[in-house]
Amino acid sequence: MSRINENYLKLPGGYLFPEISRRVRAFEQRQPGVRLIRLGIGDVVLPLPPSVCEAMHRAVDEMASEEGFRGYGPEQGYAFLREAIAQHDFAARGVEVGADEIFVSDGSKCDSANVQEIFSLEATVAVPDPVYPVYLDTNVMAGRSGTAGSDGRFERITYLPCTEANGFRPEPPAHGVDVVYLCFPNNPTGAVADRAALGEWVRYAQRHGAVLLFDAAYEAYITDPQIPHSIFEIPGAREVAIEFRSYSKSAGFTGTRCAYIVIPRGLEGRDSGGRAVSLHALWTRRHTTKFNGVSYPVQAGAAATYSERGRAEVRERIDYYMTNARIIRTGLAASGLKVFGGVNAPYIWVKTPDDLGSWGFFDSLLERAHVVVTPGAGFGACGEGYFRVSAFGKRPQIDEAVDRIRRAIG
Amino acid sequence: MSRINENYLKLPGGYLFPEISRRVRAFEQRQPGVRLIRLGIGDVVLPLPPSVCEAMHRAVDEMASEEGFRGYGPEQGYAFLREAIAQHDFAARGVEVGADEIFVSDGSKCDSANVQEIFSLEATVAVPDPVYPVYLDTNVMAGRSGTAGSDGRFERITYLPCTEANGFRPEPPAHGVDVVYLCFPNNPTGAVADRAALGEWVRYAQRHGAVLLFDAAYEAYITDPQIPHSIFEIPGAREVAIEFRSYSKSAGFTGTRCAYIVIPRGLEGRDSGGRAVSLHALWTRRHTTKFNGVSYPVQAGAAATYSERGRAEVRERIDYYMTNARIIRTGLAASGLKVFGGVNAPYIWVKTPDDLGSWGFFDSLLERAHVVVTPGAGFGACGEGYFRVSAFGKRPQIDEAVDRIRRAIG
Repeated sequence: MSRINENYLKLPGGYLFPEISRRVRAFEQRQPGVRLIRLGIGDVVLPLPPSVCEAMHRAVDEMASEEGFRGYGPEQGYAFLREAIAQHDFAARGVEVGADEIFVSDGSKCDSANVQEIFSLEATVAVPDPVYPVYLDTNVMAGRSGTAGSDGRFERITYLPCTEANGFRPEPPAHGVDVVYLCFPNNPTGAVADRAALGEWVRYAQRHGAVLLFDAAYEAYITDPQIPHSIFEIPGAREVAIEFRSYSKSAGFTGTRCAYIVIPRGLEGRDSGGRAVSLHALWTRRHTTKFNGVSYPVQAGAAATYSERGRAEVRERIDYYMTNARIIRTGLAASGLKVFGGVNAPYIWVKTPDDLGSWGFFDSLLERAHVVVTPGAGFGACGEGYFRVSAFGKRPQIDEAVDRIRRAIG
Repeated sequence: MSRINENYLKLPGGYLFPEISRRVRAFEQRQPGVRLIRLGIGDVVLPLPPSVCEAMHRAVDEMASEEGFRGYGPEQGYAFLREAIAQHDFAARGVEVGADEIFVSDGSKCDSANVQEIFSLEATVAVPDPVYPVYLDTNVMAGRSGTAGSDGRFERITYLPCTEANGFRPEPPAHGVDVVYLCFPNNPTGAVADRAALGEWVRYAQRHGAVLLFDAAYEAYITDPQIPHSIFEIPGAREVAIEFRSYSKSAGFTGTRCAYIVIPRGLEGRDSGGRAVSLHALWTRRHTTKFNGVSYPVQAGAAATYSERGRAEVRERIDYYMTNARIIRTGLAASGLKVFGGVNAPYIWVKTPDDLGSWGFFDSLLERAHVVVTPGAGFGACGEGYFRVSAFGKRPQIDEAVDRIRRAIG
């Protein structure tokens, strides 16, 4: 039989969210009449903005016509979208990013999963703990880790603890690594990093020749004007960082699929002879060889989020979810829980009461409050003793969920 | 600086199609007034089928509504699409493929690029020559090859020559390999494989424990009822094969993006201890960890191709392109060129006259006929001395291109 990639066998049983689904299904079979409120998976619930839908309808009409039909587009995305991104997401904030440094994709999950391919299998990797599982799992699958110990931590991976003590903002490690994943506003903790904290990371990367992989999928949720939206707001970042952005959580594209990655032209890695190699060139090769561009109607929809109406509609949605976040944050705090995040992010990170374990509290909340949250331990060892509540929900459910949790733990 | 994946540096300068674009642009700058006819890249030109567009419009309307909005879908694709595929593409032809063996994706380029990830880096790989460059390049990028020799061939890769002598149907090699890429109807040669030829490959795979990666992206173009549309029409194939299918060339989805991969549940590889491991399980892990599903409106559009109207509209488009293929095939043959393919495939594979090199003939055709074709050498050493003509074009252009080529070589 043909030889398989054994690195996959190092991964534990299942991805976090399928395990949650399994437990929820089991509960529903036991108690079929119960109406659950799901604040586990971070999925948007509000409809796509009208301006996005109108742009998609127009694009579909073009595809239906002899003159307007479009076949293969540029793998990196259409110029109309890349230029709108460069202007609105960066130039408008005084950040220098060229349209040719933007690669449009079908999701930040894909981008943050695929980016590791351009680095050596010898490259050392640092990930926050707790962390979005994709960063870690894809490096394990590629072979950049040893096996997992009894604590679930993989050999050869550097874990960056995010704890109450450091405000859930990891500090650079004492030693150098090749690649560091960072995510601000953070999933799952909802923490943000200010200019000083990000500046420290940029200096670390400069000192050690590391590349920062900066996931800014939640930047639209930043309310504090002092918090940078892009790593490229930090001087020197263009020489050390790659950034991920997404329309999933801003414009509600989780089922529509569009995102992008920014790789500055000057960003370099090195080969084993110590020669500098452009990461932009490597990613261009990767992207054009393995990807064929995002669906044209979807790109047209994404571009519509930059129109004046589109921006207002996106803003409305974010305000709605951030009102949810406030309701959850204040409601849970009022019932005596210790809460973090939820101010510049749609996630509220909550300490379990009575030092309960994450999965234990998950199960008890499911049984007693009929509310689904995400157990913090699912995001890493440092997530143990916490749970994540997502602000993505309809208002009546949010209100009721907070009420149910309050009563369940009261 | 962080260590890069040096395997990328083994690849020659550029992907085939960007090199063609470069030469075309240079020509256009020299002769700006000339109207070129492009039969190089295999891209469809007819509008999307009306039933597809209607389904996409309906899906966008759903996404615009409170009740109809859909967030994250299943990574493997919606059941409505997977079930339609299982029924229409397989059960209707008497082929057993379960809906849960189908993984919907955003393109066969991605699928055929990504599938290698579930195999060991030690796995040996065989590719046809000439070949769709993605199969080879992605294995080089992953590190399954040595460096390229002066003939452009990579060490550690087994090349399967497709020549006039074997009817452009490669024979199994004498030695065993882990993975074999096959593509029928073939891009670029237009050749097809009958049951006997495919049966030989299945027996080879059984004997050597190989996995066949069968690219059937052009199956809709088969006109001969004796030619299998799926590798799974061959007894035993479910234990040795994976198949790629796409809506790109059938329903004109090159800019809309939808495809799928079939991995039978029973298909196994082995780990280094010789233990059997399910490839379906490995791919499930890969697909759910690195991909977030295809855009809902796109999946709705793909499903519409299986309605009675949708099937008729797709058929119409294929008939149109196959009439083009006939015009090209007979026209070029009448002008004394030796032509292959174009009967069960939208590609015509043509011997260059006077033993001219592929790129030399490409340049001369560009200069003298103002027609863009694809040089056979771009697909591999055995493509030298051939060129590929794509039947994807509007009828008047096809007629004129044939006329121009005839006059240029006359």
